[in-house]
Amino acid sequence: MKDGAEFARPDFSRKERTGAPEVVFCQGKTPEQIASIMVRLSRETEENIFGTRATHKDHDAVVAVLPQAMYHEEARIIAVPGKRPAKKEGAVAVLTAGTADIPVGEEAAVTAELLGNRVTRIYDVGVAGIHRLLDCIDEIKEHHVIIAVAGMEGALPSVVAGMVDVPVIAVPTSVGYGANFDGLSALLTMINGCASGVGVVNIDNGYGAACLADKITGMIGKQKTDEIDIEIDV
Amino acid sequence: MKDGAEFARPDFSRKERTGAPEVVFCQGKTPEQIASIMVRLSRETEENIFGTRATHKDHDAVVAVLPQAMYHEEARIIAVPGKRPAKKEGAVAVLTAGTADIPVGEEAAVTAELLGNRVTRIYDVGVAGIHRLLDCIDEIKEHHVIIAVAGMEGALPSVVAGMVDVPVIAVPTSVGYGANFDGLSALLTMINGCASGVGVVNIDNGYGAACLADKITGMIGKQKTDEIDIEIDV
Amino acid sequence: MKDGAEFARPDFSRKERTGAPEVVFCQGKTPEQIASIMVRLSRETEENIFGTRATHKDHDAVVAVLPQAMYHEEARIIAVPGKRPAKKEGAVAVLTAGTADIPVGEEAAVTAELLGNRVTRIYDVGVAGIHRLLDCIDEIKEHHVIIAVAGMEGALPSVVAGMVDVPVIAVPTSVGYGANFDGLSALLTMINGCASGVGVVNIDNGYGAACLADKITGMIGKQKTDEIDIEIDV
Amino acid sequence: MKDGAEFARPDFSRKERTGAPEVVFCQGKTPEQIASIMVRLSRETEENIFGTRATHKDHDAVVAVLPQAMYHEEARIIAVPGKRPAKKEGAVAVLTAGTADIPVGEEAAVTAELLGNRVTRIYDVGVAGIHRLLDCIDEIKEHHVIIAVAGMEGALPSVVAGMVDVPVIAVPTSVGYGANFDGLSALLTMINGCASGVGVVNIDNGYGAACLADKITGMIGKQKTDEIDIEIDV
Amino acid sequence: MKDGAEFARPDFSRKERTGAPEVVFCQGKTPEQIASIMVRLSRETEENIFGTRATHKDHDAVVAVLPQAMYHEEARIIAVPGKRPAKKEGAVAVLTAGTADIPVGEEAAVTAELLGNRVTRIYDVGVAGIHRLLDCIDEIKEHHVIIAVAGMEGALPSVVAGMVDVPVIAVPTSVGYGANFDGLSALLTMINGCASGVGVVNIDNGYGAACLADKITGMIGKQKTDEIDIEIDV
Amino acid sequence: MKDGAEFARPDFSRKERTGAPEVVFCQGKTPEQIASIMVRLSRETEENIFGTRATHKDHDAVVAVLPQAMYHEEARIIAVPGKRPAKKEGAVAVLTAGTADIPVGEEAAVTAELLGNRVTRIYDVGVAGIHRLLDCIDEIKEHHVIIAVAGMEGALPSVVAGMVDVPVIAVPTSVGYGANFDGLSALLTMINGCASGVGVVNIDNGYGAACLADKITGMIGKQKTDEIDIEIDV
Amino acid sequence: MKDGAEFARPDFSRKERTGAPEVVFCQGKTPEQIASIMVRLSRETEENIFGTRATHKDHDAVVAVLPQAMYHEEARIIAVPGKRPAKKEGAVAVLTAGTADIPVGEEAAVTAELLGNRVTRIYDVGVAGIHRLLDCIDEIKEHHVIIAVAGMEGALPSVVAGMVDVPVIAVPTSVGYGANFDGLSALLTMINGCASGVGVVNIDNGYGAACLADKITGMIGKQKTDEIDIEIDV
Amino acid sequence: MKDGAEFARPDFSRKERTGAPEVVFCQGKTPEQIASIMVRLSRETEENIFGTRATHKDHDAVVAVLPQAMYHEEARIIAVPGKRPAKKEGAVAVLTAGTADIPVGEEAAVTAELLGNRVTRIYDVGVAGIHRLLDCIDEIKEHHVIIAVAGMEGALPSVVAGMVDVPVIAVPTSVGYGANFDGLSALLTMINGCASGVGVVNIDNGYGAACLADKITGMIGKQKTDEIDIEIDV
Repeated sequence: MKDGAEFARPDFSRKERTGAPEVVFCQGKTPEQIASIMVRLSRETEENIFGTRATHKDHDAVVAVLPQAMYHEEARIIAVPGKRPAKKEGAVAVLTAGTADIPVGEEAAVTAELLGNRVTRIYDVGVAGIHRLLDCIDEIKEHHVIIAVAGMEGALPSVVAGMVDVPVIAVPTSVGYGANFDGLSALLTMINGCASGVGVVNIDNGYGAACLADKITGMIGKQKTDEIDIEIDV
Repeated sequence: MKDGAEFARPDFSRKERTGAPEVVFCQGKTPEQIASIMVRLSRETEENIFGTRATHKDHDAVVAVLPQAMYHEEARIIAVPGKRPAKKEGAVAVLTAGTADIPVGEEAAVTAELLGNRVTRIYDVGVAGIHRLLDCIDEIKEHHVIIAVAGMEGALPSVVAGMVDVPVIAVPTSVGYGANFDGLSALLTMINGCASGVGVVNIDNGYGAACLADKITGMIGKQKTDEIDIEIDV
Repeated sequence: MKDGAEFARPDFSRKERTGAPEVVFCQGKTPEQIASIMVRLSRETEENIFGTRATHKDHDAVVAVLPQAMYHEEARIIAVPGKRPAKKEGAVAVLTAGTADIPVGEEAAVTAELLGNRVTRIYDVGVAGIHRLLDCIDEIKEHHVIIAVAGMEGALPSVVAGMVDVPVIAVPTSVGYGANFDGLSALLTMINGCASGVGVVNIDNGYGAACLADKITGMIGKQKTDEIDIEIDV
Repeated sequence: MKDGAEFARPDFSRKERTGAPEVVFCQGKTPEQIASIMVRLSRETEENIFGTRATHKDHDAVVAVLPQAMYHEEARIIAVPGKRPAKKEGAVAVLTAGTADIPVGEEAAVTAELLGNRVTRIYDVGVAGIHRLLDCIDEIKEHHVIIAVAGMEGALPSVVAGMVDVPVIAVPTSVGYGANFDGLSALLTMINGCASGVGVVNIDNGYGAACLADKITGMIGKQKTDEIDIEIDV
Repeated sequence: MKDGAEFARPDFSRKERTGAPEVVFCQGKTPEQIASIMVRLSRETEENIFGTRATHKDHDAVVAVLPQAMYHEEARIIAVPGKRPAKKEGAVAVLTAGTADIPVGEEAAVTAELLGNRVTRIYDVGVAGIHRLLDCIDEIKEHHVIIAVAGMEGALPSVVAGMVDVPVIAVPTSVGYGANFDGLSALLTMINGCASGVGVVNIDNGYGAACLADKITGMIGKQKTDEIDIEIDV
Repeated sequence: MKDGAEFARPDFSRKERTGAPEVVFCQGKTPEQIASIMVRLSRETEENIFGTRATHKDHDAVVAVLPQAMYHEEARIIAVPGKRPAKKEGAVAVLTAGTADIPVGEEAAVTAELLGNRVTRIYDVGVAGIHRLLDCIDEIKEHHVIIAVAGMEGALPSVVAGMVDVPVIAVPTSVGYGANFDGLSALLTMINGCASGVGVVNIDNGYGAACLADKITGMIGKQKTDEIDIEIDV
Repeated sequence: MKDGAEFARPDFSRKERTGAPEVVFCQGKTPEQIASIMVRLSRETEENIFGTRATHKDHDAVVAVLPQAMYHEEARIIAVPGKRPAKKEGAVAVLTAGTADIPVGEEAAVTAELLGNRVTRIYDVGVAGIHRLLDCIDEIKEHHVIIAVAGMEGALPSVVAGMVDVPVIAVPTSVGYGANFDGLSALLTMINGCASGVGVVNIDNGYGAACLADKITGMIGKQKTDEIDIEIDV
Repeated sequence: MKDGAEFARPDFSRKERTGAPEVVFCQGKTPEQIASIMVRLSRETEENIFGTRATHKDHDAVVAVLPQAMYHEEARIIAVPGKRPAKKEGAVAVLTAGTADIPVGEEAAVTAELLGNRVTRIYDVGVAGIHRLLDCIDEIKEHHVIIAVAGMEGALPSVVAGMVDVPVIAVPTSVGYGANFDGLSALLTMINGCASGVGVVNIDNGYGAACLADKITGMIGKQKTDEIDIEIDV
């Protein structure tokens, strides 16, 4: 019987197919499995490769075989720099409501940077002291996409989306206690937000928010519709 | 076997005991039961008596026996004016996030008025267009208590509480659809709010919010602690 | 006491502030309130104005005062054509998993069109007969944004996102029965999807999906980051 | 990249704006972050500063830089005495249903004291042995606000509110097991309570209850409405 | 294919086996099915037969074939008197918290009577006005079993059980609104009650409460353990 | 400030009032608090005193001050024998569905014994191998009350109640995994059981089941109703 | 814009691909849509075609264009007989716990028959009167697959699976009230069942159960593994 | 008092009765209990015996008394080879969506092998990279039963079932985070799947899936219906 690591089928064509590289979700894998997969990825691609939800111990295993692997502690990301991806000229603002939301914010920020975006971090601007947000709103508006990270009542994305004309990606976090039910409260708030132009990702999923942001900033250089040949016979 | 109406035990001593009059919760009672209870209450007290969650049909039954009974349609309240209660000099601001929240806002506003407070209605100031709220904030601050009513993501009370120095009473509503789960979303948001000084009542419970507001405005004339003799041997 | 309709504060500056026009959410408002608000909106803007979750009865009330108002039955949208907004050259594909999801798909499609996008409808391509989706995938890929609408198990957005390099907006619907719990099942599936590049909106919220899509297609003409002056002192 | 602690934006104007000082929620922050924030707060204010949900280890870090910092073990609060805030003359009774609810009760009691109130602790008076509550009820009534803390079935606030004429703040706790679902049971009980004059805060949120109580006792010296100039053009 | 009614297998030996007669749960059955089953039951037994959750229409169908069938409107029970079961000498007190809980209380009371118990109805004694309960407590104590019916916060059974030395059967009701979630709130309260000696039945299940009460009052004449020969080889 | 232990108000009159002695719920209390409370109880009563949910460490603390204290490991009960309570002649059968349910079964069995009942343990008779239950059913029937303990699908009480004529007390356990949601599954099964004569207690609450059983076996010597003077003026 | 009906993509190759014919889920479709789809299906296949969750009104629309269409009222199925599918020689037993579960049982039974199986209906054999089930168990065992349909506590499949050596398909129903939460209770029971050999389908999904049963009876004529050439390079 | 282990009633007749051997669920049992039960089983049967959810420590205890006991680490299964059961000629494909689902896949695969089936493992073929699944689909189709294991959004079984003509057993896993709610998300997805021919088992229940698969492959040699004598008088 082969061991589990052998069964992993890294998705080498993903980049070509979806524009997104294969990224390792480390949680639930052993350090050895992680190291083994990252080595295989590093042979297949010239881009940055990285793993999320990684521990120091995971990093130790990876750095033993890929010495250039760095560890972003707060973001919990192991990154192995590839031949730097072409700058996409996208500007992403990552906002957090509180300081406890920063690890998720960092997962989003570091991921967005690794995917080739310019990132501005604007942390601790939750709505319970709304002047903090209002003070930054003009600069926030100058970005292409806004990632708004919030736990507890999770109202930040809704308030922000009411003030800007760009897409807002809402990331609920499990920060809080009691009736936050590990992030369910913030998730429901964001899904029910009345401001338009908001897309929600999973609780604590900074990585997913950054991927979506990257696909959106990928629009900047896109062809206009007039030049596209769309013919679908429904 | 006696019929259900006969079993009702109107709580005539409630006013004396708790400072709050007995109020009829009409939903789930027949028009006849409602009329019968209100007649009995009107004999016992000289204050305003009223019933909440009442329909036109309920009002028809009451007005047949108590001709002075009025019906506040949007608030769904039947009110029978008593010897007007002494003005308590309390000022209550009732805010709603959207127009669909107004019936609950009205239940709160009319109840607070019937209990002897001065009420200012400030409706449709939800956080997705926060300038609407900011435009009113100075006036809002001049009230003794603020009742903030909101459905969907329910972020209004939290944002307001971050800007004022008086108590905020949060009323989640069942307004919304999909993942609002009939108000659960707004309730969780409010319970998890990070601004301090907020107390939450049941979904759509405008009446309860007004009762709490009234107990708070009842503090204005209270004796100072220094003059109180508190001795509890724990 | 003023009636609720009078309290509505249509958000005339929203377009300028957020790039999105004020749209009327008709559900929970009376036909009269809807007509009154749309008349006021029509005086303030030269763009398309419209209302979602509208009934035939709502349309009757609106058409009485705004004769050019049209009713999109399946989408449940009342639209009053304004001076047509400038074409944004965005191409949006709206997919539904089943035929019962079409009303939500239509809400998304009609909204996207009213906001100035070119829309392709690709309906009934759910994953339980995946060849239907595979047959269309090449054409789907040619759009700027994909809106994937699905009830029941809600797996469509995840499968699609694994095959394209553009943003996917996931719309869970309440279609299904039993343990779908009115759309909760599809919502959870989409929030937990493992494909990256997906943002989720509320259950049955075709309107919200189209607004987000429109903000994303609005990126096409955006300035590159290098030319933006972002300076935030964190 | 700056570390998270640097991103924290202590809300120095909160006191002026909301009447409530900035308080540190220690859970989820490192001892170093807590100490750093408290030092900065101590430079900005002459009032008591404090942190909740703090451990002994957190206290060790704070006392190293602020030697006067005390630790209230049961309340899990680190307090640094400032120039004592002016006595507000408010009297707060803190009740708990059981002995296991005492830590939450203490968080409420110590917070209320730090904010300048006189506090009476009345613990272990749950409704399953109601004579214990009845024995104290006369003294309880002499306070301005009552904080009722209860886990399991959480019936205490409702029973108390039926016997007093002052506001009751209900604090559900996570005390219990099985179908208490970490406090959900007590939360629902309190939100559904039929006694009026009750506001609910988050599960185990003794701090929040005390803040609300303090805002209510802050009413005692307030101006009467007649003297207030409220003019809002709705 | 036989029709559904034909498939019903009335459990004629249930009385002998479990001490409880077969009772028809009418909800979800057609009036014809109900009438047909009751006729068959009436041929098999000389005891009272009855059906719960019955409508007037159901009764019409039954009385057409069993003219002696009576309808207890508030209890929603159709009863066909049999040869009266031997008096069991059991005394059951049925308490309700509010007037809206009376239909469930009546279902319990009428069922208990039909099973041969003496029933005392004590309605509208909820804990928010606890003096009402205290006034009756001495009489309540004189019964063999207490059925406590309550919706909303559902605290009645817990308070009662703390004052009596007999078994208490707790019946949550769906009475309430908002966060009562159709009775879930009261159910959780009762399941988490800290008073001992309480058994809980399903939401609105007055019938089930009465059956359990009847089995308990059936203990009165039981043999003492010393005379029982129990030998189980585990 | 007094420490929490001092605030405990052991309910010395409970026995007299409710027939049930004060029992210590050890979970969430320190060994010192437990020992201190048990000493106080031992001074007040001549009956057995005991504490549930106790650890070996708790027992160590108790035995240091009350040397006769025993520890029932599987039941997690510390018992201090008093002057043995008069035998009540009640016979209780404790059934468990699986072997993993035995600790809860033991909590019920030991408690029932300490309260003065004769207990028969019949373990591992779950319905998935129903012949095991059928083999014992005749002996089971000879008891006055049956406590049926089950996790996972929790069907045991319903099946048992369909075969006996005595009260069945259903105890859901948290045994299982996945969609058992820590006992919610078994709780719902039992609450929805269609067999009559079943009362449900909290998840894993063996103690509560035994208390209810004891109140029921306490019926055996009760006076008949005819001799009781019940007069309640409703 | 084409209407929704036109967008439907009947899955004509499904039979070939999956062995299952395309079946119309009528709920949520208009009678016209249903009729239109069934006509198209009838042109493509020579097998039985049918639609589930159909009303009389739906049948009226279908029979107008396909006169041979029959309506199975209790099963809510419209069936248009095709060239009868080859008999598969499979024997399916459909059990229901109660009479109210029969409509779901009939949906399963009629579907299984339309797919070419021999079906035995054994209704009203719920576990609360287990002798009813025991009386039939020998005959039940003689079938190839057993479909066990149950609402409320949903224990039937588990008990049956413990007595037979063939696959059991468990169908939870929404039958019940209160804490059955529209079938969630029965679903959880069945998913947590401890008997092995059980697969669960959606609440009220008699159709899905029959499809699974049909795939299982389709095994009877299958080739043995030894003759299969399976080579997968993992 | 006997200890718990003694109370276990291994179900020695299960094999004969249900075709499935008694298997030990090790979780929640002590190593000693496990070893003791397996020894007893080994004396009663000549088939493979095994225990699931076992740890290394459990295995240590078993191997001390049954030296031939093997430990399948990833599957967490202790297996004691018996006289090899007759080959049933069944072919089972076990699929997992991701690598983190492999432990559950292994529990299914090893169990199916121990029960006498030929198993093909096809891991890491989740729908977010659907080409991986499409590449294997022809080989997958050649099996008699497919077990599809997936966490997160759990869409694999539905997609697979739309492409094959054999039964699919869906196993949700607790793999994921945030709104996966420990597997609830995947469970709901699978229960709501629109492809027919799918039966669902409990979260992480690889063992149960294999048992069901084994009962299905047991059909291969079954008699045809025509030769069965089924006579049930309903």
